[in-house]
Amino acid sequence: MLDSVFFALKFIHMEKTMNRYEEGIVRFKEIKGDGAEKSIERLKSLHPDLEKLVMEFAFNDIYGRPALDMRSREIATIAALAATGHIAQLKVHIQAALNVGVTKEEIIEVMLQMALYAGFPAAISAIQAAKEVFDETEINRIKTNGSGIESERKKLASI
Amino acid sequence: MLDSVFFALKFIHMEKTMNRYEEGIVRFKEIKGDGAEKSIERLKSLHPDLEKLVMEFAFNDIYGRPALDMRSREIATIAALAATGHIAQLKVHIQAALNVGVTKEEIIEVMLQMALYAGFPAAISAIQAAKEVFDETEINRIKTNGSGIESERKKLASI
Amino acid sequence: MLDSVFFALKFIHMEKTMNRYEEGIVRFKEIKGDGAEKSIERLKSLHPDLEKLVMEFAFNDIYGRPALDMRSREIATIAALAATGHIAQLKVHIQAALNVGVTKEEIIEVMLQMALYAGFPAAISAIQAAKEVFDETEINRIKTNGSGIESERKKLASI
Amino acid sequence: MLDSVFFALKFIHMEKTMNRYEEGIVRFKEIKGDGAEKSIERLKSLHPDLEKLVMEFAFNDIYGRPALDMRSREIATIAALAATGHIAQLKVHIQAALNVGVTKEEIIEVMLQMALYAGFPAAISAIQAAKEVFDETEINRIKTNGSGIESERKKLASI
Amino acid sequence: MLDSVFFALKFIHMEKTMNRYEEGIVRFKEIKGDGAEKSIERLKSLHPDLEKLVMEFAFNDIYGRPALDMRSREIATIAALAATGHIAQLKVHIQAALNVGVTKEEIIEVMLQMALYAGFPAAISAIQAAKEVFDETEINRIKTNGSGIESERKKLASI
Amino acid sequence: MLDSVFFALKFIHMEKTMNRYEEGIVRFKEIKGDGAEKSIERLKSLHPDLEKLVMEFAFNDIYGRPALDMRSREIATIAALAATGHIAQLKVHIQAALNVGVTKEEIIEVMLQMALYAGFPAAISAIQAAKEVFDETEINRIKTNGSGIESERKKLASI
Repeated sequence: MLDSVFFALKFIHMEKTMNRYEEGIVRFKEIKGDGAEKSIERLKSLHPDLEKLVMEFAFNDIYGRPALDMRSREIATIAALAATGHIAQLKVHIQAALNVGVTKEEIIEVMLQMALYAGFPAAISAIQAAKEVFDETEINRIKTNGSGIESERKKLASI
Repeated sequence: MLDSVFFALKFIHMEKTMNRYEEGIVRFKEIKGDGAEKSIERLKSLHPDLEKLVMEFAFNDIYGRPALDMRSREIATIAALAATGHIAQLKVHIQAALNVGVTKEEIIEVMLQMALYAGFPAAISAIQAAKEVFDETEINRIKTNGSGIESERKKLASI
Repeated sequence: MLDSVFFALKFIHMEKTMNRYEEGIVRFKEIKGDGAEKSIERLKSLHPDLEKLVMEFAFNDIYGRPALDMRSREIATIAALAATGHIAQLKVHIQAALNVGVTKEEIIEVMLQMALYAGFPAAISAIQAAKEVFDETEINRIKTNGSGIESERKKLASI
Repeated sequence: MLDSVFFALKFIHMEKTMNRYEEGIVRFKEIKGDGAEKSIERLKSLHPDLEKLVMEFAFNDIYGRPALDMRSREIATIAALAATGHIAQLKVHIQAALNVGVTKEEIIEVMLQMALYAGFPAAISAIQAAKEVFDETEINRIKTNGSGIESERKKLASI
Repeated sequence: MLDSVFFALKFIHMEKTMNRYEEGIVRFKEIKGDGAEKSIERLKSLHPDLEKLVMEFAFNDIYGRPALDMRSREIATIAALAATGHIAQLKVHIQAALNVGVTKEEIIEVMLQMALYAGFPAAISAIQAAKEVFDETEINRIKTNGSGIESERKKLASI
Repeated sequence: MLDSVFFALKFIHMEKTMNRYEEGIVRFKEIKGDGAEKSIERLKSLHPDLEKLVMEFAFNDIYGRPALDMRSREIATIAALAATGHIAQLKVHIQAALNVGVTKEEIIEVMLQMALYAGFPAAISAIQAAKEVFDETEINRIKTNGSGIESERKKLASI
């Protein structure tokens, strides 16, 4: 009987420790799609704690909140990244936006909206980034054998 | 016959001159709701050309593009204004977001998402702004006679 | 026996749920000093989840990391807030810097250093903020009965 | 007779549609000089509507306003782009500033002035950008046969 | 004879120490006009070294460089301050721009130009600031006896 | 006798002219370490006056102030550069932070702290920059003959 208590304690301990992280990982993979594994490796290679904090806090505690649909989250994110000029991370989230069902046309429209609120240089850089992601996605779709070179975009760590 | 040609020319000229502006005004009023007339007066009082350029370019040429629904436009806008710290204009667009059907809970979620992408100070200032708009909206709803004081928020020019 | 298992399970569940939050609260109070309770109330009044996320993530997961002393954390924080212009939050962290042992002279020097890296307007606004916090701290020290008016600074939510 | 009415209507319609765009194109070419055609193609390749909106709004509605000379417009623009760190677009406007009569010495002085208002990192990046544009302009001047490689700078879309 | 050597040494020492500061003060007064004395006092009250560094470095070493006329310096400065959102300092430099001969119409045009490069919220806040300075200048012109209240704007330290 | 007066005058004149600059150079070399000479050459190649102003003002007038230790100055600087996204200059100051005794672990912690105050994209870009500097420093340590290729980082002008 004592064994089962210890087992229960150990299981719960593990569950509690792993839960936020593991749920974050699952959600991260849903959003990021194909590039998720490599993104996780890159965050880990920067710093193991960084990857842990991102999965637990960003992709469990925040992205896991039910009050906003994933499509709206990604629209908000690409708008903010375009306005603040984080181009490398913007490209990752343009792909994420496509993954959760935002269309290419809608992504371009979000960027044009940013011309009003952050100026044309921010909007143009963002549209250029979107164009590169769209072209790359097209190339990846064509290459069915997967033997192609890894894209530059995927080499960047991001959340 | 010549008269009717001149009439047609004049009418088309007027239509062409007025179109972008008038369509912008109509859309601006739809989005801004009750405060629209005063907002227009304030933009005009800053500079007549500013009000004209905003209605023509922002609220006709950009907001009038059909490829993105108004709800998504306002989510993108409040995300960008929260991330870049334009608090006065953010408050106007939090109201606009409510007007086009974004819920209070969703607005708070967009701001929490900004904690990830622009940091906690930006997110907290934005939630504080949202709280003030929600409280004010509540007060305006209660005061049915409309004799109340004009809110501070509405005194700010914005697009 | 089964009771003790359920008790253990319940205890661990509670422990796991409360731990990060409670440790965050303890650290938050250490850093913020006298104003901590009111700051917590204000964050809660903005949104209960905001207060929870701040205590768990910011003041446990990040501030609780042992690899950097609290003095260096606050120097980094006031430098960043001065450079990005979050004045309200800067004032709270100038007080926090004083609380963890950074001197007034050192705080001014950090702001002058910012003149090089973010420009004079950022530095001057930050020194002005520091001056206000110093004056206020002096006033609070004099008023021993605590019946004085609450300072403007403490009315702002912050992390 | 009815034909001539329709013709007039069609002509005016076209005129009205084309006017802002065409005037924008003429002004854009005056300011940008040799690189204008390629810049237009690049904006179009990003999105046809983007190029249209830029020519109509930026280079007709704003740049076409008579109340500020082109030299002052470009000084304001390079100051703002240096301060906000849009380097790619800054380089295009350093060339534009040279085209409308701002001297190399004056451009460097504007950037040194930015050390005061946006900090040394912004000023140094801007001077580096200016140096690259000056060197490139010199190279283009020397290569009279025009067979040289296209510069990196000209590959970037900009307004 | 030795006395005259010591006198010369002392004089040169004083000259060398005072020169940059004193020249800075003279130039600062030329640019700021009526409010200069109070501005100097405010900078001193923030920190004596701040006032010294501003006069020596900003208003002698940078503003004193002959390669750019004062009108262009102020156009660059108001553009950068509008784009980066330093509103309090922007107001001081809108007054300075008026002092060195930039017209009200030109100031508004610089701000409208910023709508393109930093977005409409930045431009609108800047035009609002300009409007307040223009109104205040008008009021100060009317009150010849000088017994009026000191304007809010002049209470802010700036360079 | 008159000769010695003139000599004294000339010497003092030189001393006064050279002092701020020369002290700045000494301090710059202490902070920057091996790369200092090349950094000086690069600043000179951008503009001789830029190098002079940086050594005199930044590395004498500001860095030479005794009220803040060099370790704290560099922590403040890397925090601000991470928060404002000046990556090239950030890398130079990560090296400077290592030179004045900040450990690699502490640098990573400053960047994680920035996740709270400037968002994850800023923090991740900064950690990526730190990782590159650490790797490069390791490579330079291994290559004792110094015949290796010059690193990309050192090609950038900075203060």
